[in-house]
Amino acid sequence: MAPGQPVDDLFLLASANQAQSRNGPYWNITFQDATGKIDGKIWSPKSQDYPSLEPGLVVRVKGFVESYRDKSQLRVDHMAILEADDPDVDLADFLPTSCVPPEELMEAVEDLVTEHMKHGPWKKFCKKVLGNTEIRSRMLTAPGAKTVHHAYVGGLLEHTLQVSRACMALCDVYPALDRQTLLAGAIFHDLGKAWELSGGPANDYTDEGRLFGHIQIGVEKLEPFLKKSKTLDDGLKMHLKHLITSHHGEHEFGSPVRPKTPEAFILHFADNMDAKLNIIDQAYAEMDKTGQDWSPYMRFLERNVYRPTQTPDKSKKNNGKPENQCLLPLKA
Amino acid sequence: MAPGQPVDDLFLLASANQAQSRNGPYWNITFQDATGKIDGKIWSPKSQDYPSLEPGLVVRVKGFVESYRDKSQLRVDHMAILEADDPDVDLADFLPTSCVPPEELMEAVEDLVTEHMKHGPWKKFCKKVLGNTEIRSRMLTAPGAKTVHHAYVGGLLEHTLQVSRACMALCDVYPALDRQTLLAGAIFHDLGKAWELSGGPANDYTDEGRLFGHIQIGVEKLEPFLKKSKTLDDGLKMHLKHLITSHHGEHEFGSPVRPKTPEAFILHFADNMDAKLNIIDQAYAEMDKTGQDWSPYMRFLERNVYRPTQTPDKSKKNNGKPENQCLLPLKA
Amino acid sequence: MAPGQPVDDLFLLASANQAQSRNGPYWNITFQDATGKIDGKIWSPKSQDYPSLEPGLVVRVKGFVESYRDKSQLRVDHMAILEADDPDVDLADFLPTSCVPPEELMEAVEDLVTEHMKHGPWKKFCKKVLGNTEIRSRMLTAPGAKTVHHAYVGGLLEHTLQVSRACMALCDVYPALDRQTLLAGAIFHDLGKAWELSGGPANDYTDEGRLFGHIQIGVEKLEPFLKKSKTLDDGLKMHLKHLITSHHGEHEFGSPVRPKTPEAFILHFADNMDAKLNIIDQAYAEMDKTGQDWSPYMRFLERNVYRPTQTPDKSKKNNGKPENQCLLPLKA
Amino acid sequence: MAPGQPVDDLFLLASANQAQSRNGPYWNITFQDATGKIDGKIWSPKSQDYPSLEPGLVVRVKGFVESYRDKSQLRVDHMAILEADDPDVDLADFLPTSCVPPEELMEAVEDLVTEHMKHGPWKKFCKKVLGNTEIRSRMLTAPGAKTVHHAYVGGLLEHTLQVSRACMALCDVYPALDRQTLLAGAIFHDLGKAWELSGGPANDYTDEGRLFGHIQIGVEKLEPFLKKSKTLDDGLKMHLKHLITSHHGEHEFGSPVRPKTPEAFILHFADNMDAKLNIIDQAYAEMDKTGQDWSPYMRFLERNVYRPTQTPDKSKKNNGKPENQCLLPLKA
Amino acid sequence: MAPGQPVDDLFLLASANQAQSRNGPYWNITFQDATGKIDGKIWSPKSQDYPSLEPGLVVRVKGFVESYRDKSQLRVDHMAILEADDPDVDLADFLPTSCVPPEELMEAVEDLVTEHMKHGPWKKFCKKVLGNTEIRSRMLTAPGAKTVHHAYVGGLLEHTLQVSRACMALCDVYPALDRQTLLAGAIFHDLGKAWELSGGPANDYTDEGRLFGHIQIGVEKLEPFLKKSKTLDDGLKMHLKHLITSHHGEHEFGSPVRPKTPEAFILHFADNMDAKLNIIDQAYAEMDKTGQDWSPYMRFLERNVYRPTQTPDKSKKNNGKPENQCLLPLKA
Amino acid sequence: MAPGQPVDDLFLLASANQAQSRNGPYWNITFQDATGKIDGKIWSPKSQDYPSLEPGLVVRVKGFVESYRDKSQLRVDHMAILEADDPDVDLADFLPTSCVPPEELMEAVEDLVTEHMKHGPWKKFCKKVLGNTEIRSRMLTAPGAKTVHHAYVGGLLEHTLQVSRACMALCDVYPALDRQTLLAGAIFHDLGKAWELSGGPANDYTDEGRLFGHIQIGVEKLEPFLKKSKTLDDGLKMHLKHLITSHHGEHEFGSPVRPKTPEAFILHFADNMDAKLNIIDQAYAEMDKTGQDWSPYMRFLERNVYRPTQTPDKSKKNNGKPENQCLLPLKA
Repeated sequence: MAPGQPVDDLFLLASANQAQSRNGPYWNITFQDATGKIDGKIWSPKSQDYPSLEPGLVVRVKGFVESYRDKSQLRVDHMAILEADDPDVDLADFLPTSCVPPEELMEAVEDLVTEHMKHGPWKKFCKKVLGNTEIRSRMLTAPGAKTVHHAYVGGLLEHTLQVSRACMALCDVYPALDRQTLLAGAIFHDLGKAWELSGGPANDYTDEGRLFGHIQIGVEKLEPFLKKSKTLDDGLKMHLKHLITSHHGEHEFGSPVRPKTPEAFILHFADNMDAKLNIIDQAYAEMDKTGQDWSPYMRFLERNVYRPTQTPDKSKKNNGKPENQCLLPLKA
Repeated sequence: MAPGQPVDDLFLLASANQAQSRNGPYWNITFQDATGKIDGKIWSPKSQDYPSLEPGLVVRVKGFVESYRDKSQLRVDHMAILEADDPDVDLADFLPTSCVPPEELMEAVEDLVTEHMKHGPWKKFCKKVLGNTEIRSRMLTAPGAKTVHHAYVGGLLEHTLQVSRACMALCDVYPALDRQTLLAGAIFHDLGKAWELSGGPANDYTDEGRLFGHIQIGVEKLEPFLKKSKTLDDGLKMHLKHLITSHHGEHEFGSPVRPKTPEAFILHFADNMDAKLNIIDQAYAEMDKTGQDWSPYMRFLERNVYRPTQTPDKSKKNNGKPENQCLLPLKA
Repeated sequence: MAPGQPVDDLFLLASANQAQSRNGPYWNITFQDATGKIDGKIWSPKSQDYPSLEPGLVVRVKGFVESYRDKSQLRVDHMAILEADDPDVDLADFLPTSCVPPEELMEAVEDLVTEHMKHGPWKKFCKKVLGNTEIRSRMLTAPGAKTVHHAYVGGLLEHTLQVSRACMALCDVYPALDRQTLLAGAIFHDLGKAWELSGGPANDYTDEGRLFGHIQIGVEKLEPFLKKSKTLDDGLKMHLKHLITSHHGEHEFGSPVRPKTPEAFILHFADNMDAKLNIIDQAYAEMDKTGQDWSPYMRFLERNVYRPTQTPDKSKKNNGKPENQCLLPLKA
Repeated sequence: MAPGQPVDDLFLLASANQAQSRNGPYWNITFQDATGKIDGKIWSPKSQDYPSLEPGLVVRVKGFVESYRDKSQLRVDHMAILEADDPDVDLADFLPTSCVPPEELMEAVEDLVTEHMKHGPWKKFCKKVLGNTEIRSRMLTAPGAKTVHHAYVGGLLEHTLQVSRACMALCDVYPALDRQTLLAGAIFHDLGKAWELSGGPANDYTDEGRLFGHIQIGVEKLEPFLKKSKTLDDGLKMHLKHLITSHHGEHEFGSPVRPKTPEAFILHFADNMDAKLNIIDQAYAEMDKTGQDWSPYMRFLERNVYRPTQTPDKSKKNNGKPENQCLLPLKA
Repeated sequence: MAPGQPVDDLFLLASANQAQSRNGPYWNITFQDATGKIDGKIWSPKSQDYPSLEPGLVVRVKGFVESYRDKSQLRVDHMAILEADDPDVDLADFLPTSCVPPEELMEAVEDLVTEHMKHGPWKKFCKKVLGNTEIRSRMLTAPGAKTVHHAYVGGLLEHTLQVSRACMALCDVYPALDRQTLLAGAIFHDLGKAWELSGGPANDYTDEGRLFGHIQIGVEKLEPFLKKSKTLDDGLKMHLKHLITSHHGEHEFGSPVRPKTPEAFILHFADNMDAKLNIIDQAYAEMDKTGQDWSPYMRFLERNVYRPTQTPDKSKKNNGKPENQCLLPLKA
Repeated sequence: MAPGQPVDDLFLLASANQAQSRNGPYWNITFQDATGKIDGKIWSPKSQDYPSLEPGLVVRVKGFVESYRDKSQLRVDHMAILEADDPDVDLADFLPTSCVPPEELMEAVEDLVTEHMKHGPWKKFCKKVLGNTEIRSRMLTAPGAKTVHHAYVGGLLEHTLQVSRACMALCDVYPALDRQTLLAGAIFHDLGKAWELSGGPANDYTDEGRLFGHIQIGVEKLEPFLKKSKTLDDGLKMHLKHLITSHHGEHEFGSPVRPKTPEAFILHFADNMDAKLNIIDQAYAEMDKTGQDWSPYMRFLERNVYRPTQTPDKSKKNNGKPENQCLLPLKA
């Protein structure tokens, strides 16, 4: 939303705090919809029409976008609070979501199981876990991280799918790898994230997330399924647990142990790589808006990112940029 | 060669130094053939039959393998020096070499160019460089590193081929990547190693190698070809040079700059991954001899490596272990 | 055992490998009893009396202590293998053990529970876990680490007891701490070590130990007891699990998460402190033998350790040195 | 002070700078009293009533608390400057101070000397130093650090007392420690801080503090007392100096040498632990105001801190929270 | 420019962005002249007189300096845009420049060549490079860094000259050093910076600068001159290239290789030292304005810097402070 | 001493330990003279002629140099112990010493004081300290470090002189520096080393050295002289103490504080540089013996060092190598 632009739209209140100026109380609000967030103000005396406001409310806002200290800011002229049971209101409409719907991502993960899992016990184990109601429903909405990468509904699945694909592709290059155990590891490596993060409008760490971390949570969630599987070899179970436990690669990234098998190295690399490529993709999306070749300094990558000249490629219509803004090439 | 075993064989002298014991002078020798190295002694008075010995000589040795301080050691009972022009002597027979002959590896690299390089200027550039007599002949014999990984004739090509394949496989998963520039980067990322290392029996760093490093040497070797290519876009040339310059990933690994494009990240990961998998493969080869599940502590990886239980796979005959000891699956 | 000394004693074979010298095959053996280990040789032709030897055998050795390259070495003149069912042979006699018998250490731990656990559910939980047959029997023999500190039978319990005592003492200084949860954390913080290490003559890491680490193993072992405890508040369970998960303090020491509560900080400090004091105690014991003020360089502490002048203290009979060589002051 | 609240109170000016707005000059002021600090403004034209203002003045302010960019800010409507010799003005009233008065803390330290120092020369030495007029008066007012922990009048003594108590408690657990030398080290470990920091309203580093650090200053201050003590053994003096010199534990925390004795390890741990617990206590005090379970991100600890569920404890009336806001339990 | 001061002067627009307030659009501008930069605003409705403004314009401004959030800010009352071909306008007048004019600095560098280069091929090589039109013109204007040190026209030459002088002075102390190769290395060590940075009003990194770094660029620029020099020994060429390649000293500062010769160590130290002294000189210049003894915290040096008491020195007129604000003592 | 060479010479016993072989007791001895050390053996039965041997004895040895595991080793055939009061025995003859006699080095340091110290109080202070009997006698014999650099009698003075010269040379390049305070700092920066190291045949750390470090010892030794100097400004004293306290540059090298003044930066650089150049000089001396261009891996520098091609220089007779093996060019 560019400064100078009038606004008349629906938003979710992501936060709402009352403050006090010389001219009386006012509201500091963060408005959110599926495309992002914007800060805003309801100045006095209009502010006094809203004795209380709470995150999670859906509102219709009329106002105007100003710029304040180099950031856009929404000045509210009028704001109506929608009823929670308003048939027009679906909270999901206000949360950013993966381009490919989470259900399709889940299906693509299941297709990988079908394609690569030739060993019955592995196939059965994966289907059991993915078919579990709580796990499935959490995976379908969980983000892939708090803020840096894949921080949207479906983000965990999108990341899971690409890491799994990368692992399978590398098994073609290194055929001595144990493809099936690696796939199981790839699919479940970040399972704990579905409990580590709250998801939803706030998407913050949960208590469990901060106190244990997603690695330990993930192993704990798989444990009952491992116990129940009578046909899966104990050595394979141990390897799967090692893949999950070691996937951060180094102690300083929170891995209790470091990779000790080639499959564990591959999983760590694929995980790391996909997170970084997703961050760059998001930077590219921003850079495309302004036509810049260099991103601003990116704290997480500790560098600026560059969009280089692309090799001309007749087979790609628009030369390296996806046709729509869906980041994930589902049907690659 | 196990202790207690008699020996009657041809060897290359990798090193030969005279020493002095209470009983007179003796020779400390390192014998080498294509399968490895073994230290040995010629004790006095037999030692006095050889007033001088030099690395590079080929000899026929009769003797006996002893164990000394937990290492095997060859006691020489008789040693005859072969003439340099002996038709039976081919130095190459005494150097460890990649399983797949270097010429086939080079062909496989060229096949990748043919398969993926659709942009004429890229294809032409790669063919020019690979067709250059000096470059080609150096690449065909160069090792991939001094000691840790791919330290054998053909090692550079083997590493180059697998890194290139890994990059191409990942382009299938991330189709927005510039596949052709990435392939050029993968093929030439370690080109400088062919000058950084002497190869041959000693395989030590060259003066240039220690004073500049293979990154700078590699860029320098490509520079004349880049200058000559009139059709290749300047931005693509710049990207290729960035891929090579940044492929060590972090300053602390000797990268003058860090990766700034997604292709540069991918190349760094593929390079790192292939080196580590080669180290593990070598550890596995040793572990197979003794039937151990755990490798000894590996200084370079800073850990012990484990061979996990393999998922039963009917499609693999010998379950995860290559049929012969060739590490590289050429016809994957 | 000083060089020049004749030997006639019982030992456990900790390792036995055959080697080959110019004079025929010989045996490299590590002999062990409760006071330590010594390397030795059986030279040819006597070596040929023993076609095979295996770790775990108990033998009676006559021989002589030589010094070889600054280390003592036992030359075997005669060696008789005892029958496994020999009534004189108790394997435990050949393993180093804590001065205070493990059973007394366990009792002392249980006394702490009785003394400090005023909240019924905590007391019941601790008694259940400590009363479990497998856990109790493993805790009674487990070492506290592989080599560096507490590497003897009872070592885990000795460390557990001192860490628990230190935590309780600090609760007197900082009364706002939750003494009971902290005690539960102290008692069980290293529980996983009873599975991470094999104990016994070899005392090496187990596969589980290397692939998961004792933190994850410990949490896994407690999980069923936590699930079963209906009366213990969920928040307290979560805190206990956090204490165990975070007790290494920093990611680089293998903590998946870092301490987030004051109790977790205290436990980490007490654990770290006790390990270091035990290392210094062992160095002091060595220094006492030779009358040195400075220890040799200690790799784990990365320094030399000093025994300073002690303040004269009439209440201590022998001024700072324990009366016997028992390191742990049980009845303090 | 919450936004929207009228103010009529005495403050110390901690800083006062004139600035210029479109509407004329105004004053940026930091007001301070024993409970904390608040920024404020005197806008034009009222600002022109105060041609000059200086830190250290005591003023009576009438005004109003606004919120500005998420921080409270005091808008001054009227301000009267009190005479320096006003009998109502005691500067100490405007500085934050330890809950337990510094004199009582000093007494508690002296009680520890009486209780534990059985060796005459140690007792005499400690009493001499603590009895020295300059040292005593500085210790009574010195803060424990610039900002992070114990940053208030009496803070140094509070920290000194708790570190000493923790050391004495650990001597009960590890009776081989030299209790008396350790106590001397604990009492004087941070003595240099009384010169490193200016204390007072500004509480910044002094020139000496920045150029030498409190370790070197502390040793320098003790040196004359050590020289004068004829009865104290030289080895004990050396140990005390080592305790002070090494108490930061690692070079990277500014220790010129690292701990080489068990007492030095203990002192370092106790020092580190008390600083961290004090930081957490302060975070808890803030969290109690807002009812949060998690603190904001704490830069010094590099983490968020959690208040866990407390074990029910009938012996504690208010379950883990001190009855008043005094952080230190003096009569524990 | 102090708050409260009226302004009537010429400036270069370093940046100009339009923003939107409640009262209409306004301009955020950064004004620059040779002495520094100041942010400013043109408020509505005056802002509407300037439908577009671009960096690089030269303007005459009348206005007033306000303070806003502790920074000075220029409120524009009137602004006239000068014609680009206005004879009064020389862009160089608006860029900060070394005190000693770049031409004189270049002459001083050339004097060093004349004085120290006794070996014909070295002298000829240096003169060739310095005489090259593109190199000379870039060196005359290039800054020494982006922001931290020597960030002004002539900065590269000033740094080059002082590093060269320091190296020559150290050769007097260590006469075994190869003075001439070291001088060549000192003169050209940062040559690549003339292409790494854009210089000019923006002075940002160029694409080449970010993708390759100035070390690789510098070697590339010298390569043709090295190839052409037939008389210079290959070993000397190799040493010069090593000096440039290794001058950052450590991998983590972006050196592809680390110094391997004494001359390379000296060059690295001299380079590092001169950069730090220049930073301190700039801090001193700021501190002199306010009479402070301590600088504010300096992020690059990670510390505050102190101006100590100076030894009285009759030979220096103004006791350690240069007579004018020229930082470089050209005729030392 | 090359293997195969007969020996008939005087040595100091640097160490002597009895050991036990199959053939009876033998002696492991380290023999030392001014040129270095060599290990040796006295085998049984000759060993039994020497019931006890102690470090510090001077002996005449006849024997033979053997090589053992790539090191030379002296086999003793005959050994006579000289009387301690033998007029032929001067212990100093057996210790390695700086080429330039320590007295001349001291004179050269005093010449620097005379030349540069124009401020009376500085000159007087330096003369007082250097004239003190204990300090002077310790400085004349102290080594510059334990092993790595300047580890010989006179080494401290040699290092002190070169660091002082380097600082003075840099003051010519940076005339704003306070030359006199810097000189005082350079002369006394390592004063504490004369107490930190024992010097003599063993040259190990003293107790004080390990417990406090030479920085604190040095400041302590200067303190009484600083107190006595009435004319030296307090600010100058403070600066001198800061120079000494901060000269290791970074906390991780044991500096309690880091440099805060330009003089402190210069001193740190000069100190660091001189130590490294001395290490390289020693490596060069070894390399000259064997004609190698590359040194072996040097643990302290963490690299191999290279001797590059030297620029031809008619003014140097032997082209970069000193005429004799004196490392220090005293009359430069």
